[in-house]
Amino acid sequence: MIQQIDHLGIAVRKLEDTIPYYEKSLGLKCHGVEEVESQKVRTAFFDAGGVHIELLEPTADDSPIAKFLETRGEGIHHIAFRTDDIEGQLKQASESGVRLIHEVPFEGAAEKLVAFLHPKSTHGVLTEFCMAKHHDAAGEGDSMVE
Amino acid sequence: MIQQIDHLGIAVRKLEDTIPYYEKSLGLKCHGVEEVESQKVRTAFFDAGGVHIELLEPTADDSPIAKFLETRGEGIHHIAFRTDDIEGQLKQASESGVRLIHEVPFEGAAEKLVAFLHPKSTHGVLTEFCMAKHHDAAGEGDSMVE
Repeated sequence: MIQQIDHLGIAVRKLEDTIPYYEKSLGLKCHGVEEVESQKVRTAFFDAGGVHIELLEPTADDSPIAKFLETRGEGIHHIAFRTDDIEGQLKQASESGVRLIHEVPFEGAAEKLVAFLHPKSTHGVLTEFCMAKHHDAAGEGDSMVE
Repeated sequence: MIQQIDHLGIAVRKLEDTIPYYEKSLGLKCHGVEEVESQKVRTAFFDAGGVHIELLEPTADDSPIAKFLETRGEGIHHIAFRTDDIEGQLKQASESGVRLIHEVPFEGAAEKLVAFLHPKSTHGVLTEFCMAKHHDAAGEGDSMVE
């Protein structure tokens, strides 16, 4: 079951050029910057009342974010829903006709399992499911975003 | 101060073609469909753990959503932050160099005051501030989205 929106991924050209907007213009706090090598991105995290905003800067020309920037420019890249049953969520989506990018969840950052649905079958919204690997951990709601 | 992400606006061609994806594939519940004449849209609302998803279908060729669909296709249209001080939030954004689409908040649906920042100065993300008109009302968190 979907518990809530976990985070929004936003594609940007340079973190350092964008962080001041979120901090100074919106008044949100940056909780950290992290490189995710497998995805070829650097990310900066903000918290907006329990939903994270994740800025994504490409670290290579063949990063998915580099391709997105090339065709669409800066903007919202994906929406991630937190679930307590990622396998069941993928099965439900697949059985209702949604095309999955990942049939099997893989490990994202911060010990989360993640999988994406294809925007061609989600009315243009690149959609991620994510689940904490350790359900019994205290403070699950505080886990960092993918 | 920004309290939380209030809702995400998602541009779609037809509500009736899109609602089944959110209901059947994601398992979210549609809380209602409403026409907002001033914005020339029909909207359908979903709740995802306290953040609303607002599908937006244009009702006229000159609707802002019709223009968005023409140039970008279906997808995430805007992000709305809930604040308890919309005037202060606009002032903070403006003073830090952000271009405002609305210098003065106007009344959106569901008795909310709303105003937008221009995506050219927010790194590509059309950004809305919204505030309940009646702060003292009980159950403010349950108020419907713009």
